[in-house]
Amino acid sequence: MDLGEKKCVPCEGGIPPLDPTEIEELRKHIKNDWEISENKKLIKEYLFVNYRHTMDFVIKVSELAEEEGHHPVMHVYFGRVVIELWTHAINGLSENDFIMAYKIDKI
Amino acid sequence: MDLGEKKCVPCEGGIPPLDPTEIEELRKHIKNDWEISENKKLIKEYLFVNYRHTMDFVIKVSELAEEEGHHPVMHVYFGRVVIELWTHAINGLSENDFIMAYKIDKI
Repeated sequence: MDLGEKKCVPCEGGIPPLDPTEIEELRKHIKNDWEISENKKLIKEYLFVNYRHTMDFVIKVSELAEEEGHHPVMHVYFGRVVIELWTHAINGLSENDFIMAYKIDKI
Repeated sequence: MDLGEKKCVPCEGGIPPLDPTEIEELRKHIKNDWEISENKKLIKEYLFVNYRHTMDFVIKVSELAEEEGHHPVMHVYFGRVVIELWTHAINGLSENDFIMAYKIDKI
């Protein structure tokens, strides 16, 4: 499976969040430095040499978020961004989160 | 005192953070919806109708941050940004933080 070939699909709820077995399977398809928090969130820290590089990344993530219709939370520091991905409508993880994680790492 | 007329000045430490009396004085010059957390941080939440408005604000704050050489932390959600201001070098508040608070509210 190539997550880069997939697009996020609208998720309005009504489906269960991914279970730990499904999460472990999808996890193999993204970089292994994504932290999985309580099987509910994907979290990753990105470091940059200066604020310009930090903001360039933030803007690219925001553009990807609009394209995919799936918007991560971003915590923006001077030379650091922490990304959090989860699917609000199901209060847990969906395949969309792994698609976004994969694509953010391609930025 | 008009904080809008002032510019942030480099702060490399070596001065004490503002004390509670000084903070109360400066507080009068910014909008009263800034929370002052433990006399160490200024915090404010901004709400937006959509992600594009959210990111427009984030980008403008980042441009102001570069102009002033003083970079707030930004927590960026779909329709919400939480700004945190403090002066890292002195682990507390300096006049710079109030200048930034004033100018962010003018965006």
